[in-house]
Amino acid sequence: MTSGTEGSKLWGGRFVGDTDPIMEKFNASLAYDQRMWDADVRGSRAYAKALEKAKLVTAGEMEQILQGMDQISDEWTKGVFVIKPGDEDIHTANERRLKELIGAPAGKLHTGRSRNDQVVTDMRLWLRDAISTLTENALQMISTMVERAAAEIDVLFPGYTHMQRAQPIRWSHWILSHAVALSRDVDRLREIRRRVNVLPLGSGAIAGTPFNVDRELLQKELAFEGISLNSMDATGQRDFVVEFLFWASLCLTHLSKMAEDLMLYSTKEFSFVTLSDAYSTGSSLMPQKKNADSLELIRSKAGRAFGRCAGFMMTLKGLPSTYNKDLQEDKEAMFDCYDTVHAVLQINQSVMEAALSPDMLATDLAYYLVRKGMPFREAHGVSGKAVFMAESKHVTLNQLTVEELSVLSPLFGSDVSSVWDYRSSVEQYSAPGGTAKSSVAAQVEHLRNWLNRQKQAQ
Amino acid sequence: MTSGTEGSKLWGGRFVGDTDPIMEKFNASLAYDQRMWDADVRGSRAYAKALEKAKLVTAGEMEQILQGMDQISDEWTKGVFVIKPGDEDIHTANERRLKELIGAPAGKLHTGRSRNDQVVTDMRLWLRDAISTLTENALQMISTMVERAAAEIDVLFPGYTHMQRAQPIRWSHWILSHAVALSRDVDRLREIRRRVNVLPLGSGAIAGTPFNVDRELLQKELAFEGISLNSMDATGQRDFVVEFLFWASLCLTHLSKMAEDLMLYSTKEFSFVTLSDAYSTGSSLMPQKKNADSLELIRSKAGRAFGRCAGFMMTLKGLPSTYNKDLQEDKEAMFDCYDTVHAVLQINQSVMEAALSPDMLATDLAYYLVRKGMPFREAHGVSGKAVFMAESKHVTLNQLTVEELSVLSPLFGSDVSSVWDYRSSVEQYSAPGGTAKSSVAAQVEHLRNWLNRQKQAQ
Amino acid sequence: MTSGTEGSKLWGGRFVGDTDPIMEKFNASLAYDQRMWDADVRGSRAYAKALEKAKLVTAGEMEQILQGMDQISDEWTKGVFVIKPGDEDIHTANERRLKELIGAPAGKLHTGRSRNDQVVTDMRLWLRDAISTLTENALQMISTMVERAAAEIDVLFPGYTHMQRAQPIRWSHWILSHAVALSRDVDRLREIRRRVNVLPLGSGAIAGTPFNVDRELLQKELAFEGISLNSMDATGQRDFVVEFLFWASLCLTHLSKMAEDLMLYSTKEFSFVTLSDAYSTGSSLMPQKKNADSLELIRSKAGRAFGRCAGFMMTLKGLPSTYNKDLQEDKEAMFDCYDTVHAVLQINQSVMEAALSPDMLATDLAYYLVRKGMPFREAHGVSGKAVFMAESKHVTLNQLTVEELSVLSPLFGSDVSSVWDYRSSVEQYSAPGGTAKSSVAAQVEHLRNWLNRQKQAQ
Amino acid sequence: MTSGTEGSKLWGGRFVGDTDPIMEKFNASLAYDQRMWDADVRGSRAYAKALEKAKLVTAGEMEQILQGMDQISDEWTKGVFVIKPGDEDIHTANERRLKELIGAPAGKLHTGRSRNDQVVTDMRLWLRDAISTLTENALQMISTMVERAAAEIDVLFPGYTHMQRAQPIRWSHWILSHAVALSRDVDRLREIRRRVNVLPLGSGAIAGTPFNVDRELLQKELAFEGISLNSMDATGQRDFVVEFLFWASLCLTHLSKMAEDLMLYSTKEFSFVTLSDAYSTGSSLMPQKKNADSLELIRSKAGRAFGRCAGFMMTLKGLPSTYNKDLQEDKEAMFDCYDTVHAVLQINQSVMEAALSPDMLATDLAYYLVRKGMPFREAHGVSGKAVFMAESKHVTLNQLTVEELSVLSPLFGSDVSSVWDYRSSVEQYSAPGGTAKSSVAAQVEHLRNWLNRQKQAQ
Repeated sequence: MTSGTEGSKLWGGRFVGDTDPIMEKFNASLAYDQRMWDADVRGSRAYAKALEKAKLVTAGEMEQILQGMDQISDEWTKGVFVIKPGDEDIHTANERRLKELIGAPAGKLHTGRSRNDQVVTDMRLWLRDAISTLTENALQMISTMVERAAAEIDVLFPGYTHMQRAQPIRWSHWILSHAVALSRDVDRLREIRRRVNVLPLGSGAIAGTPFNVDRELLQKELAFEGISLNSMDATGQRDFVVEFLFWASLCLTHLSKMAEDLMLYSTKEFSFVTLSDAYSTGSSLMPQKKNADSLELIRSKAGRAFGRCAGFMMTLKGLPSTYNKDLQEDKEAMFDCYDTVHAVLQINQSVMEAALSPDMLATDLAYYLVRKGMPFREAHGVSGKAVFMAESKHVTLNQLTVEELSVLSPLFGSDVSSVWDYRSSVEQYSAPGGTAKSSVAAQVEHLRNWLNRQKQAQ
Repeated sequence: MTSGTEGSKLWGGRFVGDTDPIMEKFNASLAYDQRMWDADVRGSRAYAKALEKAKLVTAGEMEQILQGMDQISDEWTKGVFVIKPGDEDIHTANERRLKELIGAPAGKLHTGRSRNDQVVTDMRLWLRDAISTLTENALQMISTMVERAAAEIDVLFPGYTHMQRAQPIRWSHWILSHAVALSRDVDRLREIRRRVNVLPLGSGAIAGTPFNVDRELLQKELAFEGISLNSMDATGQRDFVVEFLFWASLCLTHLSKMAEDLMLYSTKEFSFVTLSDAYSTGSSLMPQKKNADSLELIRSKAGRAFGRCAGFMMTLKGLPSTYNKDLQEDKEAMFDCYDTVHAVLQINQSVMEAALSPDMLATDLAYYLVRKGMPFREAHGVSGKAVFMAESKHVTLNQLTVEELSVLSPLFGSDVSSVWDYRSSVEQYSAPGGTAKSSVAAQVEHLRNWLNRQKQAQ
Repeated sequence: MTSGTEGSKLWGGRFVGDTDPIMEKFNASLAYDQRMWDADVRGSRAYAKALEKAKLVTAGEMEQILQGMDQISDEWTKGVFVIKPGDEDIHTANERRLKELIGAPAGKLHTGRSRNDQVVTDMRLWLRDAISTLTENALQMISTMVERAAAEIDVLFPGYTHMQRAQPIRWSHWILSHAVALSRDVDRLREIRRRVNVLPLGSGAIAGTPFNVDRELLQKELAFEGISLNSMDATGQRDFVVEFLFWASLCLTHLSKMAEDLMLYSTKEFSFVTLSDAYSTGSSLMPQKKNADSLELIRSKAGRAFGRCAGFMMTLKGLPSTYNKDLQEDKEAMFDCYDTVHAVLQINQSVMEAALSPDMLATDLAYYLVRKGMPFREAHGVSGKAVFMAESKHVTLNQLTVEELSVLSPLFGSDVSSVWDYRSSVEQYSAPGGTAKSSVAAQVEHLRNWLNRQKQAQ
Repeated sequence: MTSGTEGSKLWGGRFVGDTDPIMEKFNASLAYDQRMWDADVRGSRAYAKALEKAKLVTAGEMEQILQGMDQISDEWTKGVFVIKPGDEDIHTANERRLKELIGAPAGKLHTGRSRNDQVVTDMRLWLRDAISTLTENALQMISTMVERAAAEIDVLFPGYTHMQRAQPIRWSHWILSHAVALSRDVDRLREIRRRVNVLPLGSGAIAGTPFNVDRELLQKELAFEGISLNSMDATGQRDFVVEFLFWASLCLTHLSKMAEDLMLYSTKEFSFVTLSDAYSTGSSLMPQKKNADSLELIRSKAGRAFGRCAGFMMTLKGLPSTYNKDLQEDKEAMFDCYDTVHAVLQINQSVMEAALSPDMLATDLAYYLVRKGMPFREAHGVSGKAVFMAESKHVTLNQLTVEELSVLSPLFGSDVSSVWDYRSSVEQYSAPGGTAKSSVAAQVEHLRNWLNRQKQAQ
């Protein structure tokens, strides 16, 4: 890690040649690490206080630094911070600006600090916030799913294994199977947050800090839960990053599974669900088409995130201890995984909230006819006609009268409204975890309670 | 999932053609899943008790099943269990054998159970035990490292960043930087264990169990901490497997880093450590060579484990819900990662315990000469001669007299024994996490306490 | 790389301690590399001839070595070769056995050879044969597909994009889209074979061979196409292995796509194809089920192979030049990918050959009704009834009379037999690559010619 | 794939709701695919000509389109092309602009074309150019290495296996071992280029083109070597992308190996090479440090590229046939791998060209002393002192007189200048591929000839 000031690199003393411009570009990280400007400012503010306590800056100098940092923060917030040539990364950019604003005292801010502990402090602050946002996104998504499961608990549809029809189950049971997977993702995210939330500042480049820097003060100022135990480990490890990258991969794998199910269910052939236009696109060539693009994009993102995880794991493999420049690959991977999960969770929630209609009554209707002796393929067709009829008449399926239905098949009788079918079959599965109404309702209740506890823990 | 009996598959009723032999081989998993024979027996014993409570078998039938299972267990233990053609997997093998032993009641054991919940129960039981073993291995490894760090706290050597000499640090500080990483691995392993330790049995194929099977009884019998909340999720998810595969990858990445350091340190050029012959090999061609094969193998295994993780994640991507045969890839990956980490942790511990000698005194000696004005490269050479002299005289380095040392360089004086150098430099880093003796001792103490808590939690 | 003889390692001269038994096991590769026994024997036979030409062994000694090697080959073929403790790998096993058989001259065989060039020679010989087998497998598979496409060129069915119906296409067009992908796999495999087929023997451990070993003689004896240009590269690179691992991954990704299509088409909802019982399995729980296990297994294997590729790439990343023990991970990955592709290609071919029936006439029939004004879902149901009727009457679908069909819908008329529908739509796509009959026939012809050229190139 | 015009999506006819803004952003690709503006313009120009030939546009309309496209090209070149809201991707942006420029005829350009074949045409055109650039980069890099190997053929240094000294070799032999690996990368790149260079245009969305579009005309206009054989394959496969991603990974793995070697050699402990300041950085904390950042960055990029490959392979796994939106992940991966390899090859070439000095004479000098009986560690130190002395006197090492050298060790004699050592050892390895001067010179010659052929093939 290196740091520079205007025009000449801080580390340039013993260097006689200029840096090659291609090399300079290759080395620079400001294009992406400026996202951490706020974390960098917060870290420097806390460090200024520790320097004052250690008598390495005066109270007056500290005040200057704090006010300078406030102005820098203000400039970033307003989008008027000016990046200059030579700003390699967010740390040098902020420090360069500080020097412009307050002059000499800016030069004392880096005392006993190395970019090795500074960068990892910024990343931990940034990721802690990012995790909070994703936790909230995931909880909202789960909450939407749980309430939808509660509301649609009476809808039945065929459960599949091996993509072949297996047993009738509740639509809510299917929803909750995905909600449960997401709740594990939230659990894991909280565990990762605990490991992210540890202060590395005060580890220096490798050996620790030689001055009387009070690490407990830093911890309190930055609201970390713990203090890193070993300075070599603190500056050289990126476990918290790869844990997050893998978390993103697994979470998106869960969502890819849900997306795959929904794509199957929204084929014309299955026709269990309809996706609203806002989450579909059409074809420039084929006017009848309605593509579930949103679901396909969701499915694709598991690969993207895992690629980031695989890439960074490979970069880490076989590296020697402590800081090596290879670690600079950490940030783009972290940002990309965050952005991806953030977008996918939002889209997914919207899809579940309003954009998705189950057309399961049609399946139930087909099952009714099957029980009356009609072959399923025929029943499926008749049921499709009933859907078409209901749409034409602008009523919902279960508002069709027996007379209307009889036009489609003489098998329809007065029992059609009462016997919304297969329920007794489904009701057998009342052991915990099963698909019976009581069992599904218990799952809903369990997850509601879990959500309440989670929200309190936020 | 399918199940078979002697000569004809259980699921064969509606099938008219025979299975293609290539297909049969492709489909079979017994070659590797027989490792779970014990878990399978334990799961079936518990299930027999639940069936009896649900009045699906009589007390007498239950007894027959339990005794049959005991005998099967006995046969596996003694290595006399005979595998027969048609035994697709461990579940069918055990059930086929049970039928041979007790006849008709064996046929009742599968009532309301599916191979979908059976296989995942077996895997969770197996992995729970495997995790306990690995936790113990890791704790022993950490313990060895901590005690070594305590004993060798006075050895100094150059700390590196970017593979370039940075600052003098304690050898123990380096050891502990790796011990701290491993302690996070143990933390993570405990978190995974909690998620592994959940009962899926009673989830059936997809919808749950239609009979009055008491899942809480099953939980108690099999000592699970929790019961799966949703049957579709329980049979179709393999989160606990991928979490374990990723855990293995990250743990081995830590060990690859340590191995890389040690390989550097054991080059002739660095000459900081010597690896004992028991963990090295020679060359058939070059008699002078001593290769640190054990370290190279350790370094290589991070790739192997991550490959398993990547492979299974890719297999999972985009799968629809519930059981799909693709999931059969789970077991070989799980076994291979376990075997790999198990072996690596043992080797690593042995290396740290007895096979590794730090030759850091030589470095200290070089630093002494450097402080007297000798260029480092020269000092390094003189120090090497001192090592050679000590070896020739069969004494340790610090037993050489000033007279003897003076032959090598006139710079050696009586201060050589007292001023084992650089200590004052190192002593500056006394903030928590630093490399000062007090700080390293505090790390040792912290980790000893942590180890004690861990051992109690075993 | 090391080599040993009975009881004491060849490289053991300067070693005083015994090897740790765990380490010995960790280090050994015989369990898997014995698959290369034949390549190892061939390599040694050729090397013996080169030694004789270089006057390093006499003609008599060479004869003894050749005869000894013949006997070893014979023992492996008959399965009577006895592995002994201390046989680390296939090279030491064969050399140890040779010494038992012919005594002293066996010791001369390794002159100027290192295990570094020996192992990579064996691997290249083995992989060259493996590639020939896979090329043949793939060509047979493509041939089956092409002939099937030729035979069923008149079957139409809906083409999908985004899993939504797009345009009617020919079933053969779909088949050929997968055959074309496989033909690219064959092209790639031939390119890889060229790079595999290069002689590394004579590169020694790192620097080359110091004796007058005639590498052109070795090349001719072993039928290699080229000679490695640089000894450091020759012994330390594994490009040919990773190229093969990636090839396997991409080939299996193609087959996973085809399997995914077929799984969709064989759902009850799509019902385009039926998979014969020999490639399906049933459920122990649900008697009506027929799972396309073979297709699911095929789909899963892309992950497995790519995991091997990812793992070995990660192992390679950042390794220094020349042989490092890490490279030992090469063989299991190579063997596993070969076995996997070999099995999958065979299964796939059987599925395409005889195990798969397209039920597309039903779709055509539905389209007929749709064109007469019936909604597709209804038409789909009527068509299903027609299939059922045909099955009941033991005739094929197009043998049903208009009278019989009229029972199902009054829309059926005498035009039903003539207008097997949508053909005119499909016929529009007659540009090269399109789905018109002429265009598909041209693709068939193109691939037949390509196959002929390939077979000649075998 | 979809296409839009100003304000309302082209595919919007049957859609009643607006697209969700989050979804719109998630779906958009213009931010990155605008890099292909030139390919898109070229593809459209060619297609306009084919439409004219097919009488789908008049000659006048064609002229308007061509002129409009020229202006668009001009706007992109000058950086004045204005992106508007609703421009989802480069295709819609260009088409929207064309409509603004020429009105109605713009609407005819998409006749019979789908974004499915348009996007893949653009990608192939773009990648073909990118591959040409990378081929040139790689050839320049190899050329630099070969000429350096030719010039420094007399420098010897220790060859390592297992990171342990093995045998003396030529520095040029080491350089060429990496050049040979890169020459294989060039071979592979040419093979990939052949598969990239195939025309997909005229494949429509899935079924081909229904109009009389002359694909051979398109091929000629766009200078493709071949025409895609099957329209479903042409629009749905991304083999050429993953082949390129894997190529980048393997190429960077080679460069990571070279970087690892150089980092080892530039440690103080090895001190074989010095990296010029322009490719190194210092430390803000430790003034004496000089970090080989450029080499570390190079080493890290193998992970990055392989992550892209792994991610996209995982996205592809199990996708059904033809275009699915998941494929949109192809472009960022392709661009990132190109940018990464492009930068790394340039940096690497600069490092080899001027930024790297071998200090091998020091090693040779040490070997001289070793042959006179001095232990290596001591010799290494003496040699270091000689380097220091030469630096102080501002002469090169071999300009030191015997008298000067004698101060450092009495072992230096008049033979020191003549016997620049170990040469006879190295000269033994004269078989092809070995490290003898004649053999290394032959490698140089071989690679020079190969380079000439490659340059002619450009």
